[in-house]
Amino acid sequence: MFDRYREYLEKALAAAVPPLEDHAVNTLLRYHLGWSDETGAASATPASQGKALRPTLCMFACDALQGDPRHAAPAAAALELIHNFSLVHDDIQDQGLERRHQPTVWAVWGTERALVAGDAMQSLGDLSTLSVGSGVPPDTVIRVSQLLTQSYLEMIEGQCRDLEFERRETIESGEYLAMIALKTGALIRSSMAIGAAMATDDPETMENVAQFGRAIGRLFQIRDDYLGIWGDEAITGKSTDSDIVQRKKSYPIVYAFQHADGANREELLRLYSQEAFDEPDVNRVLDILDELGADRQTDELTEVTAEEGRAALAMLELPPWATEDAKNLIDFMAYRLF
Amino acid sequence: MFDRYREYLEKALAAAVPPLEDHAVNTLLRYHLGWSDETGAASATPASQGKALRPTLCMFACDALQGDPRHAAPAAAALELIHNFSLVHDDIQDQGLERRHQPTVWAVWGTERALVAGDAMQSLGDLSTLSVGSGVPPDTVIRVSQLLTQSYLEMIEGQCRDLEFERRETIESGEYLAMIALKTGALIRSSMAIGAAMATDDPETMENVAQFGRAIGRLFQIRDDYLGIWGDEAITGKSTDSDIVQRKKSYPIVYAFQHADGANREELLRLYSQEAFDEPDVNRVLDILDELGADRQTDELTEVTAEEGRAALAMLELPPWATEDAKNLIDFMAYRLF
Repeated sequence: MFDRYREYLEKALAAAVPPLEDHAVNTLLRYHLGWSDETGAASATPASQGKALRPTLCMFACDALQGDPRHAAPAAAALELIHNFSLVHDDIQDQGLERRHQPTVWAVWGTERALVAGDAMQSLGDLSTLSVGSGVPPDTVIRVSQLLTQSYLEMIEGQCRDLEFERRETIESGEYLAMIALKTGALIRSSMAIGAAMATDDPETMENVAQFGRAIGRLFQIRDDYLGIWGDEAITGKSTDSDIVQRKKSYPIVYAFQHADGANREELLRLYSQEAFDEPDVNRVLDILDELGADRQTDELTEVTAEEGRAALAMLELPPWATEDAKNLIDFMAYRLF
Repeated sequence: MFDRYREYLEKALAAAVPPLEDHAVNTLLRYHLGWSDETGAASATPASQGKALRPTLCMFACDALQGDPRHAAPAAAALELIHNFSLVHDDIQDQGLERRHQPTVWAVWGTERALVAGDAMQSLGDLSTLSVGSGVPPDTVIRVSQLLTQSYLEMIEGQCRDLEFERRETIESGEYLAMIALKTGALIRSSMAIGAAMATDDPETMENVAQFGRAIGRLFQIRDDYLGIWGDEAITGKSTDSDIVQRKKSYPIVYAFQHADGANREELLRLYSQEAFDEPDVNRVLDILDELGADRQTDELTEVTAEEGRAALAMLELPPWATEDAKNLIDFMAYRLF
């Protein structure tokens, strides 16, 4: 599934980010996307661009509903550009020095230029969506542009809440789930909704696709939260406990804060008011999570969400190949080890 | 002219930035626009929003070409939101603490949240443009959204070049004019082009409107550059010499760098390699500008640009009231004292 639409995506991305030699900002974009080096010269071996989850979901949804996935490609490129824009800005906020085995954009060009490059990437995505071209009715173009911008706004709202959470002592699970539904979920959900809108305007179908997309978005983040603490380092490629060392308030931690009482609660509050964690601190957190069954609770939430996704899928009338793909997608999102 | 469309604009702005009480980011936006205080409570006396140049130009262009200026209002609101978004981000970059007699957004909420609030403002503008509603053909909605996004991308490219100029010793006048045509000019030009597109799709008319808008944009910046050095402090409300103290490479300085030779050139290079200017430094720069006739040259460029604007206007067939307004607009932009 992740290779099926790659050619369409690459064509649409290349059209969305034109090689304007006189545009200063273009070099930054092409560098971030792995297409060129710092001087703007084309890369001999373009770096890996990841698995392009959002564009693939977009073109798959269109294809599954008997639309032409090529019509969805310009919007799929926009989703990839918005995702990349958020990575450029995240790297600035986290002061990350390396991404995809090369120095980050801000590390090369400085914060201010990296910020505007991110803004440009998002706008090129908007233009790509608006310029979807022949074969698509203008009303659909407008509808799809609205879906894209709305979900981008939801993503921003999620980022804003996340920043607010960082300053707070405790967060309720419900608040956390609402935040990730916006910050991570909105763009994943709209990826599918946008692809679907290219194939149909039936409101019931659209609602079921959105419901399915919502489940995929939550699965993606909750599984990420699980692997960030209990994942196998040899498989994920990330250091286990790294979410704890970074004191990320991911779902298991939020759950623990909400359900710990007495000495455990005191201990968590004390630990998370510290500036940094050492090895014994990390182990203490892991012990508390164990004691409260935060891992089982996270698995449980994953299972419930996967069921919601399957229920939405059952409401959709898709050809057998697409139903099969969609089921596999849920399983991959829910049970992946990396 | 600046009061004529205010009611339409206010209505469109209010619709574009809905009072969603559960949206954390909304408080920041409403605060920046002067509609609410830091807690989100509505202001008893909404702060001044400036003269809303871009929205006014947009609705005027539509009106002058016999379109309905109310159709242009949602896009006009978008232009105002994008302009405000650039102010929020500028305040972060310049570390400005006050704007419109209140603390800046980043000063209240911090840099990260101010950044995402700016992003949200721009996207609300996009949505406003896409949701222009009945009476406007969908093809026009798409065309206008494209014009808006393209000019926003040009603005970003201008910002990027401006940041690059800061690191360079000298800049050619031509490069400077190309930069301001993007950074300041693009949004002013597109304001008129977008209004015009709501009324006509005649390519010749569109080109003449764009030409007129380009002249207005350059006049706006060049006059700003003039007043930033030689303006009357009592009228502009800004300290004269402030552009020199801030060592802005505005047009007169760029001109001086390009035309100074011998001792003057050495002196300029020495002065602008310093960390800061004291009073005698400022006076030394003013003397060099005088000697090279940079003020006359700036006036000359203003006059040439005003003539270009008048020539574009002469090609447009507008009703007498609109021609009159457009001529006054050129004169105001070229000869304003504040």
